[in-house]
Amino acid sequence: MANAVFQSFDEISDRTKGAPRLALLRVELKRRGVQGFVVPRADEHQNEYVPPCAERLAWLTGFTGSWGTAIALMDKAAVFVDGRYTVQVREQVDAGAFTPEHLIETPPETWLELHLKKGDRLGYDPNLHTPDAVKKLERACAKAGATLVPLDGNPIDSVWEGRPPVPLAPVVLHALDKAGEDTAAKLRRIGEKLGSLGDDALVVSDPHALAWIFNVRGGDVSHTPLPLGYAVVPREGRPEIFIDGRKLSNAVRSELAGMAEIAEPAALDTALAALGKAGRKVRFDQATAAQRLVTLVEKAGGTADVGVDPVALMKAAKNVTEIEGTRAAHRRDAVAMAAFLAWLAREAPKGSVTEIAAAEKLEECRRATGALKDVSFPSIAGAGPNAALPHYRVSRGSDRRLDPGIFLIDSGGQYEDGTTDITRTVAVGEPTPEMRDRFTRVLKGHIAISTAVFPKGTWGAQLDSFARRPLWEAGLDFDHGTGHGVGSYLSVHEGPQRISKLGTTPLEPGMILSNEPGYYKAGAWGIRIENLILVEKRDIPGAVREMYGFETLSFAPIDLALVEPALLTAEEKAWLDAYHAEVRAIVGPQVTGETLVWLDQATRPVG
Amino acid sequence: MANAVFQSFDEISDRTKGAPRLALLRVELKRRGVQGFVVPRADEHQNEYVPPCAERLAWLTGFTGSWGTAIALMDKAAVFVDGRYTVQVREQVDAGAFTPEHLIETPPETWLELHLKKGDRLGYDPNLHTPDAVKKLERACAKAGATLVPLDGNPIDSVWEGRPPVPLAPVVLHALDKAGEDTAAKLRRIGEKLGSLGDDALVVSDPHALAWIFNVRGGDVSHTPLPLGYAVVPREGRPEIFIDGRKLSNAVRSELAGMAEIAEPAALDTALAALGKAGRKVRFDQATAAQRLVTLVEKAGGTADVGVDPVALMKAAKNVTEIEGTRAAHRRDAVAMAAFLAWLAREAPKGSVTEIAAAEKLEECRRATGALKDVSFPSIAGAGPNAALPHYRVSRGSDRRLDPGIFLIDSGGQYEDGTTDITRTVAVGEPTPEMRDRFTRVLKGHIAISTAVFPKGTWGAQLDSFARRPLWEAGLDFDHGTGHGVGSYLSVHEGPQRISKLGTTPLEPGMILSNEPGYYKAGAWGIRIENLILVEKRDIPGAVREMYGFETLSFAPIDLALVEPALLTAEEKAWLDAYHAEVRAIVGPQVTGETLVWLDQATRPVG
Repeated sequence: MANAVFQSFDEISDRTKGAPRLALLRVELKRRGVQGFVVPRADEHQNEYVPPCAERLAWLTGFTGSWGTAIALMDKAAVFVDGRYTVQVREQVDAGAFTPEHLIETPPETWLELHLKKGDRLGYDPNLHTPDAVKKLERACAKAGATLVPLDGNPIDSVWEGRPPVPLAPVVLHALDKAGEDTAAKLRRIGEKLGSLGDDALVVSDPHALAWIFNVRGGDVSHTPLPLGYAVVPREGRPEIFIDGRKLSNAVRSELAGMAEIAEPAALDTALAALGKAGRKVRFDQATAAQRLVTLVEKAGGTADVGVDPVALMKAAKNVTEIEGTRAAHRRDAVAMAAFLAWLAREAPKGSVTEIAAAEKLEECRRATGALKDVSFPSIAGAGPNAALPHYRVSRGSDRRLDPGIFLIDSGGQYEDGTTDITRTVAVGEPTPEMRDRFTRVLKGHIAISTAVFPKGTWGAQLDSFARRPLWEAGLDFDHGTGHGVGSYLSVHEGPQRISKLGTTPLEPGMILSNEPGYYKAGAWGIRIENLILVEKRDIPGAVREMYGFETLSFAPIDLALVEPALLTAEEKAWLDAYHAEVRAIVGPQVTGETLVWLDQATRPVG
Repeated sequence: MANAVFQSFDEISDRTKGAPRLALLRVELKRRGVQGFVVPRADEHQNEYVPPCAERLAWLTGFTGSWGTAIALMDKAAVFVDGRYTVQVREQVDAGAFTPEHLIETPPETWLELHLKKGDRLGYDPNLHTPDAVKKLERACAKAGATLVPLDGNPIDSVWEGRPPVPLAPVVLHALDKAGEDTAAKLRRIGEKLGSLGDDALVVSDPHALAWIFNVRGGDVSHTPLPLGYAVVPREGRPEIFIDGRKLSNAVRSELAGMAEIAEPAALDTALAALGKAGRKVRFDQATAAQRLVTLVEKAGGTADVGVDPVALMKAAKNVTEIEGTRAAHRRDAVAMAAFLAWLAREAPKGSVTEIAAAEKLEECRRATGALKDVSFPSIAGAGPNAALPHYRVSRGSDRRLDPGIFLIDSGGQYEDGTTDITRTVAVGEPTPEMRDRFTRVLKGHIAISTAVFPKGTWGAQLDSFARRPLWEAGLDFDHGTGHGVGSYLSVHEGPQRISKLGTTPLEPGMILSNEPGYYKAGAWGIRIENLILVEKRDIPGAVREMYGFETLSFAPIDLALVEPALLTAEEKAWLDAYHAEVRAIVGPQVTGETLVWLDQATRPVG
C-alpha cells in the first residue's frame, strides 16, 4: 500500500480555537500598550515554506494557506487572503472572530484606514516585515492618525502555549560535483558586484542565497533544503555566517570555517551595528530582509541600500555542473513518472483510485528511485472540479475518486542533483470533444514556448503570450503565469526569472523555468501541461543577433487520448512525435514489464 | 511635375553658426549670473513638432533632429542625441563648439556630474521642462555640488536675432459630425474622472487634449492640426481656455464662449495662483505640463497632482463617429496610394525616380483627393541603404535614385475625418532571395498582429512578440516597437496605447494603432509593412472572456514580388488573398486606366 512520507493530507486546522486565542492575544496587546497587531504568514526570511514555530497566522486564525495576513484590533479582526483562498478561509476561520477579506478588494491598508482610530498604536513584529511592507503599513496608519509601532518580541509567542521550537536540521555540504562553483569564486563575483553597486557589504537574509553561496543545504523547512541563517559578505575580506551552532557537525563546521567566520544568530545584531558605526553602505535584499536588520544599520549611522539581491541573478543562471545535475535528476524522475502513469492507466479505469492514493503512489514511485530527498512541494492532485483550482491541495476532506473525465497531477522531487516539477493531465475513460479541444490548445501553447527562439535581452513577458494565443483564439485564457523559475536542489519557485506578463528579467543561458499553460473550466475540470525548460544558446545560420532557445528537461508522455490531431500543425505534430521518441529513448531502457508496454503505447506517433 | 507643399527636402542647418551663437549665449548667461544653460528640443507643451520660434536647439547648434538636448557651460558644451541621430549630429553640428554625446552612453545628467563645478549655477527655462525632467537635472546638480536655477525668460530668445514670432494660425471648429461627442459630454466625463482622482481641477497643457475637449483644431505646428494654448477644467463648473485671441474668428470665439471662459495665455498664471491660494488639488499631465505651471500652484499653497493626463485615455478610444471618419479617410487615402504605387511600378524600372520625386508624387496623389489638410509627417522615402534607417528623412543631400532592389516609403495624410499612416516596401527590378525571405517574415509578423484575438485587459507588450517570432526564427529582429497609437485628425503618434515590449496600457475598443514590423539590413536595404488597425470587440462562440481583435484600416497592395509563398502557412495565404480582395473591392471602383490595370495585377491571389 502506497503512502506518503513527505506530504500530509490531514486537516491541521481547527476553527474553534480562533476566538479564545484572539482573546489571549488582545490581553497581551493591552499589556504592551498597543491597540492592534499585524500577523503576516511569514518567518524572518520571507520563506515560502515556514517552520512550524513561525506558523503564527495558522495558530491564531486556523487559516493554513501559503499566503495571508491577519490584523487584530481590540474590537475587530480580519484575515486577508487572495483569490486562491477565498473558499478555504471561510472553511478554516471562525468568521465570528475574524472577518475574511479579499486582498485586492479590501487590502489591509484600506481596512486599517477604515478601522484604526486616531491615536491608536498598531504593533508589528519588525522581524517579519520587509521595509517596503512597513512603509505601506506606516502610510495607512498615518492616514488614520495612528502610529505603527515595532514590538520587541512577537506577542503571539508570549501567549502560544506549546509553540514548536526553532528547527535544528543538520546542515550538509553540497559537494562541488553538484554545486559546480566553489564558494571562493562565488564570493569574488559578489564582491565585484558590490563594488559596481558602490556597497561595502551584503546582508544575506535569503536562506536560498546562504545555501548557494556557501554550498550547503539544510532541512529547516518543508520541501526546500534550506538552512535558516544569515551571512554578511563584505566587498573584500572574510564573510561571517550567523547560524545556530547546533545544526553544524564538526566536519561541516570545519569546512565552513575554512571560508567564513561562524557565529550564533544573535551576533548578527552586533555585526550590523558595527557596520553602521563604521559608516558603511550595506546592501539588503528588498524581498527578504526584515525591517529590524535595516534599522540596526541605519540607527548606528550606516546607509542601508535596499534593492535586488545580487545573488538572485547569479543563482538563477545555473552552471554546467548544475545543468548536468538537473538533466540527471529529470531522467531519474522520468522513470518515476512513467511507473506512476502506467499504474494510473491500469488502476484509474477500475474506479478505485482517489486523489490522495494517486499522490501517495507518485511519491512512492519517486522514493523508489532511491535518491528522493523530499517532494519539491505537496502534490496538486485534482479530479473533476478540484482540477479547476490551479492551486488545489488535496486533504482527507476534499479527496475525490477519479471518475471518468480528466485528472491533473502537478508534482516534483528534490534530488541532490536537481529539483523537478512536472504536470500531466490524463484522461480517465473517454474524454469529451471539449476536453480534447482545450487540451490540444494548451498543448499548442506549451509547444509554442518550447520551440521559441529569441534574442539575448528578451524577458519572460515577451514570450508569455505565445502560450496563450491558441486559447485566445477560442475566447479562453488561464489566470496564472506561464512559467516560474526553478532552483538547483533549492526552491521549486525561484526568482527573478519567469514567463509572465510581468516578467521583466532578461532570460539568460542556464536559467531553468517551468512551461505550464493550462485551462480551467470552473466547477468542472482543469488542464495543465508542464515541463521544465532550460535557457540555452542557439546557433542559427545567418543570425545577426545572439539567439537563445529552450532545452526541455522533463520527460513523460503527454496523453494522446486528449490530443485532437486535426488541431495541430505539421510542425506541432513533429514536435510531439520527437518529444515522445525522446521520452521513449530515455525512459525505455530504465523500465520493464507493464510500464514498458504502456510506455511504448503512450509514446506512439500522433499520426 | 510633382512637388511637395507640405514637406521640404532642403537642408535647413548651417554648422558654421554654432560657435558664434554659443559665444553670444555665454555672454548672456554671464550677464544673468549662471554658469550654464540647458537647451532641450522642446516647446512649452512638449510637442513632437514645435513652432519655428521654439527651434532653439537648431538655432544654437544646427542640429535639426526631432529629439535632442544641448548643454552649454562656460568652457564646454555638448549635444545629446539618441541612436537615430548619431550620424546626423556629426554632419550638422560644429564639433569644435559642441561635443556630440550619445544619450544612453553619456546621459546629460552624467555629463553634468562630470563637468559642473562646485558652486556652479546651471540655468534652465522652466517652461520647457516637465517636473520629472527638472528632478533629474536637480539630482545631477546636487551630486556635483551645483545648483539648478530656473530663469525668467529664455536667454536664447534674448540673443536670437530674427527669432520667428509665435504662430497664430486660425482656430477652426471640429464639427460634431467629425468629433462625435460634444464638449459638454467630454467635460462631464473629465469631471467624473477628477472626482475619482480626488482632484479639484485639471490643467490642460497638451494641445492635443485642448483640441479634443473643445472640438477645435489649429495649425500652429507642422503636420498636426494643433491650436497651441491651455485650459483649466474644474471638476464642476465652467472651464477656462487660455489662447491668443488673434487666432479666434468671431464665429469661433462665440462658439467657444458657449462652453468656456476665454482668456489670453498670460492670464493662466493668475488662474493657477488663484487655484493654489484656494488650497485646491490640481491635476497636471506629467508628460506635457511645464515645471513653471506646477510651481505656480504649489507656491500659492495648492497641491499639484502630477500624473497621467486623464484625457489621454478618453481621446485614445475613438467613438463611432471618429471610427466612421477614419474608415472614410483610409478609403480615400487608399486611392492616393494606388495611384502612387501604380506610377512607381511604371516609372521606377526606368531608373529616373529618386526618393524625393517619389515623396513628391505621393503627396501630389494625396492632394488630388481634394481633402488633404497636411501630410501627417514628412515621408520616409528610402532607397537602398537609406531604407535601412527606420527614421530616415530624405533631403537634397541624401536623395538617392531608386536602383534595382527595394524601396521603402512610410507616409500619411491628415484629413478632417481622420489621420493615416502607411508603409509599403516595393521591389524595383528583381529582388534577391534574401530580400524575399526577409520580406515574407516581416509579412508573417504583420499578419500575426492583424489576426490576433486577445482578452480584455491585454496590453500591447503582450502582443508585440507575435510580430517578431518569424524574424527571431531566423536570428533576426527589428529595433523599434511594433506599433504606436494614432489620433483622429490629431497626432499620428498618440499615446498611451502602443504595441511594444514597454506598452502596458490595456487595449480598448476604438483605439487606433499602427502595425509595422520591419527588418533592416544595415548599409544595404530595409523593409517595413505598415497598416493602421482598430481595436474592436470580437464575438467568439463559446468564449468565456470578453475578447478583442483588430480591424485593418489601411488598404494598399502588399508587393507580391517580395512574397515567398512557400514560407506562408495556408492561413497566412488566405489572409493575404482576403486582404487583397478587400483592397480591390474598395479601391477598384475609385480608379481607372493604368491604375486599375495595375491594381488588378497587384491584388491577384498569391496562389
